[in-house]
Parts: sequence; structure tokens; C-alpha cells
Amino acid sequence: MDDAYEPSPRTRVVRKKKRATYSKAQIHAIFDEALIGALAAVIDGEPQVQPMIHARMDDALILHGSSANRMLSHLAQGARCTFNVTLVDGLVLGRSVPDHTFRYRSATVYGAAQPVAGAAEKRRLMKIVFDHIIAARWESLPPVDEDYLATVQVLVLPLDECVAKINMDGPEDLPGDAWAGIIPFSFAAGAPMAAPGNRGDAPGAVARYKRPQGAS
Amino acid sequence: MDDAYEPSPRTRVVRKKKRATYSKAQIHAIFDEALIGALAAVIDGEPQVQPMIHARMDDALILHGSSANRMLSHLAQGARCTFNVTLVDGLVLGRSVPDHTFRYRSATVYGAAQPVAGAAEKRRLMKIVFDHIIAARWESLPPVDEDYLATVQVLVLPLDECVAKINMDGPEDLPGDAWAGIIPFSFAAGAPMAAPGNRGDAPGAVARYKRPQGAS
Repeated sequence: MDDAYEPSPRTRVVRKKKRATYSKAQIHAIFDEALIGALAAVIDGEPQVQPMIHARMDDALILHGSSANRMLSHLAQGARCTFNVTLVDGLVLGRSVPDHTFRYRSATVYGAAQPVAGAAEKRRLMKIVFDHIIAARWESLPPVDEDYLATVQVLVLPLDECVAKINMDGPEDLPGDAWAGIIPFSFAAGAPMAAPGNRGDAPGAVARYKRPQGAS
Repeated sequence: MDDAYEPSPRTRVVRKKKRATYSKAQIHAIFDEALIGALAAVIDGEPQVQPMIHARMDDALILHGSSANRMLSHLAQGARCTFNVTLVDGLVLGRSVPDHTFRYRSATVYGAAQPVAGAAEKRRLMKIVFDHIIAARWESLPPVDEDYLATVQVLVLPLDECVAKINMDGPEDLPGDAWAGIIPFSFAAGAPMAAPGNRGDAPGAVARYKRPQGAS
């Protein structure tokens, strides 16, 4: 089963099973397309959730933030976390109230993240995060120094216990007067707005910004 | 302070304070624009987070789902939750690694949700959820019966302990060769795809689907 993650009691889907997938290719594509996700942990017995940039590196996600970020500091001490990304691909309009839903692709991983030490390794992983957000950016910037890297926490969350749910169905063919169908949703990047002081035009990865497209 | 929520130890922002707001108008606009959010709770001591449709009703959010939804059942028994919505409005590209960030608007509420009983009240709140997603849809559909409503959980989460973080800044004016500026991001709804059996054209709220726009 190299191509799929093993279901666990937490990731085994019991309702709407046909929406569930453990396929590595499908789960990786969702993490790669999503810009950000929602990182949850338990702090002082309370649920906490915050938006978080991620980037996938093989069978793991890289998380990073300020060394003052409370949730990441908590995870660095071994606390468990759950991370979800959700792409909303469209609105499904049926001819009855229950036949309304979203088209979506959602991936969730459960686990414990390991903190990364050392400037060289932090630099290597931060480049992967930058590459996830925008191509060819990291290498266009001055190298980051160790003083800066000391203020950054970088953690690696293994993709081991994970599952995706995908719904790309349309409405059922029910009788009725209501218009039925799908409104497709997508991410749109507009024309770049230049800051003062640029010496040339926006590079291609800025001028024609795109996300990987995994929706079918 | 009718116009702002009172900060709590959990919602008081200590870093990058100028991004924080407790303004009801600003927080409500973020919840109203976001299609879905991330709902977190603690189940069996583990953090859980899942995507969740919400709709705002004055100073509360309506959540709903199947009566088999484990997280909502957990909340209905009094468990605390945290709900976050995040709108990513753009990518800020500076001339140094640390001067990269997103433009975003994010709102978080902490609390305990109250389950709603009774078909009439569930019907009333589900209409608000439909209205949040798409205008004029609920009233175009056959009324839902009590058998269906018995399979739906509806909960109300008070907006009391909440905070938003908003970053609409651009990059700093730093020297350097890298192109600096902003790539604006937006939500795009495409042309509706009709299912078989429609008796007419898509209504205006479908053909010209829009979200409320709160970004400055």
C-alpha cells in the first residue's frame, strides 16, 4: 500500500464513504493546491484553531511561524495537533433543501510535529514553504541570516494518519421547479500592484500567478 | 462599547496588535463574507478540526449538520469549541524574506454552542444559513418536513469572546533588486452549469453569484 495511507480509528470515514480517500496522490494534490490551512491543538484544555501556512515535503508538512507563536511553541513541546485544508470548488444546487452541498476537496492530518534545529535546515525548509506559495521567489531574495532564523520556529508534521474527503458530484435528477445545477468556484489572482522602487517589470511567477490545479 | 467585543485573556492580541480588532462591524463583515470556516473541539483529549458552514444571526453564528456528525453532537452536549474563518486577500512580496506575508482577514470565536430544538426554529435558522450561501434560494424550494429536520442538528454559537486579525499592508520600502508589491487574490464564481430538467434559465442569484465584499 505505498500509494495510500492506512486508515486509523480517527481517519476511517463511516458516513458518505464514497467521498473518502486515503490515496497519497489525491491527498498530496489537495495540500499542494491549498495556500493555507487550519491548525488545531488543545491548550490549557481548550480547543484552539488558527490559520497556518503549510508546505508539503514528501510525506510531511512543514509549518513555520514566529518563535513567539504560542501554538507552534506548544507543538514543539510534543503536543498533538490536527491540520485541515479545504478547497471549495463549487456550490451544488438541487431541487430540494437536502440536495444542496458544496463541491469540495478537504484533507486532514492528525499527529505530532517535530521542531527543526539549525540554521541550514531551517533555511532548506523555508525555501520549500516559499516555493509552495510562489515559484522562483526564494532565490530572488537576499539570503536570510542566522539572527533572523533564530526568531523563526520550523516544525515538520508527518503525513501518516490522514484522510481526504472529496465531493465533485452534481445534484440529483429530482422533479421540481427550482433551477438545479452547479456554480463553479475558483481562486483568482489579479494584476500585481507594484510597490515603489522596482527596477523592472514583475517576473512571470508574479505577473501570471497560478495555483496547482487539482480539481476535476 | 456596543460597537466592540470585550477582549478576554484568550482573545487579547499581544503581538502585531495593530492587526487586531474587536469591532463588531469588522468581525461581522468577515463572518458574512466567508463561505465556510474551521470548527475545532477537543474529543477524547485530542484536537479535532473540520470545515463547517456557518451563518451569522446578529451576535451569534448558526452551525448545522447531520445528526450523525460527531463534532456537532459533542458540542450539543456542552463541549467548548473554537471557530475560525480566514479570507486570504493577497500575497505581499517584499524585498527581504521577513517582509513577505499575506493580506488577510481572519475572525475567531471561542465559546459553547447551544442546540436548537423544534422543527419551526430549525426551519427559521436553516433559512438564514441558506441566505448566507445564496440569496433567494430557500424560498424557491419545497418546504422541508419534520422527518428531514429530525435528522439535522442546528446549533447557535454566541459571538461574545471573539477577535479578528486584519492585514491589508503592503511591503516595506526596502532597497534591493527583488520586485516588490502585492498580488491581489479574490473569489471567483464561474458560469453556472445547468443540470438536466430545468424549466428556465438560472435565476439572477445563480447567474451572477457574488459574495459580500468587505476587503478594503
